Amino acid sequence: MIHFDSDYTAGAHPEVLGRLVATNAEHTAGYGNDPYTAHAKALIREAIGSADAEVMFLVGGTQTNATAIDGLLSRWEGVLAAESGHIAVHEAGAIEASGHKVLTLPHYAGKVKAEDVEHYIAEFYADETYPHMVAPGMLYISQPTEYGTIYSRHELEALSEVCHRRNIPLYIDGARLGYALAAEGADFTLGDIARLADVFYIGGTKLGTLFGEALVCTNRALLPNLFPLVKQHGALLAKGRLLGVQFEAMFSDGLYERIGREAVKHAIRLREAFRSAGYEVVIESPTNQQFIRLPNDTIDRLRQEVSFDYWGPRGEKESIVRLVTGWATTEEDVDRCIAVLNGK
Amino acid sequence: MIHFDSDYTAGAHPEVLGRLVATNAEHTAGYGNDPYTAHAKALIREAIGSADAEVMFLVGGTQTNATAIDGLLSRWEGVLAAESGHIAVHEAGAIEASGHKVLTLPHYAGKVKAEDVEHYIAEFYADETYPHMVAPGMLYISQPTEYGTIYSRHELEALSEVCHRRNIPLYIDGARLGYALAAEGADFTLGDIARLADVFYIGGTKLGTLFGEALVCTNRALLPNLFPLVKQHGALLAKGRLLGVQFEAMFSDGLYERIGREAVKHAIRLREAFRSAGYEVVIESPTNQQFIRLPNDTIDRLRQEVSFDYWGPRGEKESIVRLVTGWATTEEDVDRCIAVLNGK
Amino acid sequence: MIHFDSDYTAGAHPEVLGRLVATNAEHTAGYGNDPYTAHAKALIREAIGSADAEVMFLVGGTQTNATAIDGLLSRWEGVLAAESGHIAVHEAGAIEASGHKVLTLPHYAGKVKAEDVEHYIAEFYADETYPHMVAPGMLYISQPTEYGTIYSRHELEALSEVCHRRNIPLYIDGARLGYALAAEGADFTLGDIARLADVFYIGGTKLGTLFGEALVCTNRALLPNLFPLVKQHGALLAKGRLLGVQFEAMFSDGLYERIGREAVKHAIRLREAFRSAGYEVVIESPTNQQFIRLPNDTIDRLRQEVSFDYWGPRGEKESIVRLVTGWATTEEDVDRCIAVLNGK
Amino acid sequence: MIHFDSDYTAGAHPEVLGRLVATNAEHTAGYGNDPYTAHAKALIREAIGSADAEVMFLVGGTQTNATAIDGLLSRWEGVLAAESGHIAVHEAGAIEASGHKVLTLPHYAGKVKAEDVEHYIAEFYADETYPHMVAPGMLYISQPTEYGTIYSRHELEALSEVCHRRNIPLYIDGARLGYALAAEGADFTLGDIARLADVFYIGGTKLGTLFGEALVCTNRALLPNLFPLVKQHGALLAKGRLLGVQFEAMFSDGLYERIGREAVKHAIRLREAFRSAGYEVVIESPTNQQFIRLPNDTIDRLRQEVSFDYWGPRGEKESIVRLVTGWATTEEDVDRCIAVLNGK
Repeated sequence: MIHFDSDYTAGAHPEVLGRLVATNAEHTAGYGNDPYTAHAKALIREAIGSADAEVMFLVGGTQTNATAIDGLLSRWEGVLAAESGHIAVHEAGAIEASGHKVLTLPHYAGKVKAEDVEHYIAEFYADETYPHMVAPGMLYISQPTEYGTIYSRHELEALSEVCHRRNIPLYIDGARLGYALAAEGADFTLGDIARLADVFYIGGTKLGTLFGEALVCTNRALLPNLFPLVKQHGALLAKGRLLGVQFEAMFSDGLYERIGREAVKHAIRLREAFRSAGYEVVIESPTNQQFIRLPNDTIDRLRQEVSFDYWGPRGEKESIVRLVTGWATTEEDVDRCIAVLNGK
Repeated sequence: MIHFDSDYTAGAHPEVLGRLVATNAEHTAGYGNDPYTAHAKALIREAIGSADAEVMFLVGGTQTNATAIDGLLSRWEGVLAAESGHIAVHEAGAIEASGHKVLTLPHYAGKVKAEDVEHYIAEFYADETYPHMVAPGMLYISQPTEYGTIYSRHELEALSEVCHRRNIPLYIDGARLGYALAAEGADFTLGDIARLADVFYIGGTKLGTLFGEALVCTNRALLPNLFPLVKQHGALLAKGRLLGVQFEAMFSDGLYERIGREAVKHAIRLREAFRSAGYEVVIESPTNQQFIRLPNDTIDRLRQEVSFDYWGPRGEKESIVRLVTGWATTEEDVDRCIAVLNGK
Repeated sequence: MIHFDSDYTAGAHPEVLGRLVATNAEHTAGYGNDPYTAHAKALIREAIGSADAEVMFLVGGTQTNATAIDGLLSRWEGVLAAESGHIAVHEAGAIEASGHKVLTLPHYAGKVKAEDVEHYIAEFYADETYPHMVAPGMLYISQPTEYGTIYSRHELEALSEVCHRRNIPLYIDGARLGYALAAEGADFTLGDIARLADVFYIGGTKLGTLFGEALVCTNRALLPNLFPLVKQHGALLAKGRLLGVQFEAMFSDGLYERIGREAVKHAIRLREAFRSAGYEVVIESPTNQQFIRLPNDTIDRLRQEVSFDYWGPRGEKESIVRLVTGWATTEEDVDRCIAVLNGK
Repeated sequence: MIHFDSDYTAGAHPEVLGRLVATNAEHTAGYGNDPYTAHAKALIREAIGSADAEVMFLVGGTQTNATAIDGLLSRWEGVLAAESGHIAVHEAGAIEASGHKVLTLPHYAGKVKAEDVEHYIAEFYADETYPHMVAPGMLYISQPTEYGTIYSRHELEALSEVCHRRNIPLYIDGARLGYALAAEGADFTLGDIARLADVFYIGGTKLGTLFGEALVCTNRALLPNLFPLVKQHGALLAKGRLLGVQFEAMFSDGLYERIGREAVKHAIRLREAFRSAGYEVVIESPTNQQFIRLPNDTIDRLRQEVSFDYWGPRGEKESIVRLVTGWATTEEDVDRCIAVLNGK
């Protein structure tokens, strides 16, 4: 079976796993106070071009979002996000569980517009009853979005500009950031992300670590006491060096870029193969997630050799499916999928 | 350097790591919906002798405690715990962060007494202002305790009896449970733990997994909807099978027992060596943590080859130290430590 | 100046204030353990026709909503509400501050439809990722709504039916309930409200008490331990009898009905006078709030003698205004407003 | 029956109630945006000698403490308090419900010592595991304490000094502040309180308002956005002017001082009468609460005409009772109580 279900269905990239195995017997201090973690932080600071950014490794995405948002907001503030955003839909209420409302904005294939952010804030403060309402205290976006789309550098600049003019931090959920950086047509770098966001995270789980997300704060005053906050959110790993070791591997020898590049290449090949075969590409995604409308019998036939998910409910005659590539996808996987599609 | 700092300073037991490596390339469903997790749950149900217990794997101890306690308590209730208990001291307020007060009981080398629990509850309801106070809604104990001591089966039965008579659940923090089961003089089994507690967890992190704790609920009505609660607490691992694979290894071929047995054996040898050398054993611990009073110059000498922590502040002339063995401790480590101690 | 700004701009109805003055010097037990509170509860149980309903008096509406919702929901559940609902907009995040997400439904002049509730729940459980999302744990509606509209008995029955079939409680925010019961065309009684809702509150503040809301729970198992929950939410009044005395007055001699009836009568007269004068009635409200579109110069002229609020922002040439009557509105107030409108 | 049960068993002081009655029919803006509230704030600023202090009126003590503490602390911080402090015992977990741990200090007749505060903070930061523990983020004291005792100016200065040196705010719960200011031997003024504390509240409920507490913040940067925080905590009164009107009365014509002075005078007379009659004064309280050890038969005899509470459980032969005077206590009440005591 070939797998295009998601980018977190396999273990770790061999280079990452190899480092975990190689260092397994060593003893280090716990909770991230180890040399691997220190080195991984240094590598990330170098990669983003910011020597004094705060870097903190957490285990998973939900807890990274919940911890960062809780740290960034005052008690009376909420977080602006696309109504399709992960924190608005799929975090099981983790944001609200720490006391904060998710304030939703319309989305355009998963993206929010700077003008909608401006409009929301302007309307909010124009309403004289605003002290009775939850103030927009930060903006959350995901890059790439839940629809596989990406913000251009220009769009990021516009969002950053409105946030800073309105004095709220910009937070970027980078669960799949590596696939955005490697996206078709991407015109921004990791340095741009670091420059334009106040806080963001570089996702490991979906890029080839066993687990782990690197929270980066370039505006350190915003998250002054991150360690106890992370601990309180249950997001502090006892054997913290496991995070350091993995991110050290990811940011050595260009692994992080390589993984993103390969996975995106595979995804684009898949997309174009489906398009060439006459099927509708539902969202023009330049990243590792592709959304195709297929007749149900084609789906059923493909599924005999290829596994993937529906995007929404199965329709009467046709349905939309999502195919996701990742670090574990091979050239041969793509070849075989296309062959099956073309009835070979 | 020989390491007796803690039981979470190295990676994973080779048998555990081996299974992670062997299964690394496989694709499975995420969030614990995979066959390894199902199998690991079955193995644990078998080990505890309870076919219909709920088993859920979480990443770390703080989040396991916070999630379970939050699920077990009503909003107006608090958790009874020894004033030395981990949740009372070292969870960075994670219990309070989910809204619950930790109600402290006196401790006796880390343990609470059933009569003190009874007394607390009786006094509470005898005070007519009790609806203005936080009601004791559950009892938290750790086995072994933070002092390395263990509750006997008789003591556990007494605690279980008072809890159930008073209609509050008994929760056991088993971060180091394997070392309690293997303790010198332990007269209880994993089955006893499961029978006497309503909810408990079998710690993996300190017993030889990279990470992971198995939360077990034998009284399922108490935690009816655990999955979203775990997700909301940021404790759900995307690549959930990593937990399943590790606990499958731990509960195969008696690994969990072997690890506990070996580590305790090493700890007892250490303890007796220090005692024979004329030093005070400060706490009579039958588990993998040992507490010894040593002259500072002896400490300084030992530390040239052996690493370990102070237990409390360094004194003028002598100090108490803690030595911890674990899955990674070898016979040779203990030999060498004793040799250094004896000036060889 | 004549006041149609809101129904909470004056103090208390003279009959209510009179009782407070008459009982002022008495000493009673605090926190609601007094005979006035007991009697007021009995009067309310009688008025709703439910001898064993739980009745609890709280100070204000936000805290009543926050306390009841917090008590009704499990930690992983959210509350369904119209996107225009008070808890979704104007509670400053009090619901989220106690950890719960507000799940919004489309509204129709402030009302939700039973079919939308059914649809939301059906869609929710049809999505296989639902354990990652916030489960709908109760339905919140307001009667009358924030738009002055009311649910008919038939609509309430349909909402109650879907809630109970789907096993979630129905909660009714009755901040202005007395004005709904007295509304033009109202075909339901307080007994119907008590029969169809699981929990609701009878608002005092907007009906003529200085403050105070009567939370009623006809399904007592849903809120088993209300007293400490109320205390914990900071909603317990030390001199609790002030709430009892006021609600005793409200439910004696038909005062609650009288206040509603008079205020609605005045509001309808106002509405028809504006309609007769050729102005658009923007929402067909049968209660004490009326929404009229007026040319700005008419507004400016009226405001020389009559105070009221804009409904939304002031427009270029015309704007929508809201006029609210209440217990303090007199026949003469209405006469004078109409006279000013008609240029007399 | 003569009442010495508590200082919140009667309604409002006649001068306060009179103002409520006199202003009842007026219409004002809600939520504290009215001239009475503005004037009351000005009067309080004048009384404390701080022209730019923030003053905010809340309804009750629990919510005032919970709101202020929540506003003052960062998420990872807890509040230091005497183990006998109201927030540690009798707030039903309201502090923990907003996420914060109460860190307890030993008490001396209800008071904490500056040296214990210093010691706690020093020990905390000396423990290298401190980032895993809840940091002391503020100090809570009550003046007078729950034992009726008062801090001298010198003691307050010492507490203020240690707090500011250690960079944590000092918060004073002034539920009965007026009785402390009027206490026998009190050597501090309201201005001293305002100068030494960062935030405190001037209690109304126990001093003669129907309800209401005036939260005062002389260090405004500490509570920058109080209004939505108060709203979110359910502590914002719709008819906010009721608080303004009452505190305007309290701070006019020296009413607040008069009430305190009279009540304390009565309490001291009671205390000395009991002492003269040979009974033990258990706590040397200079305020309106007195604690006396009495034979049970004396208690039973007194209780035929005088109502008061036990302080702790009734003993075998003798018990401790608490007698509380207040604004409603008269000279005749005291005379009669003493007469009954002396068998007349």
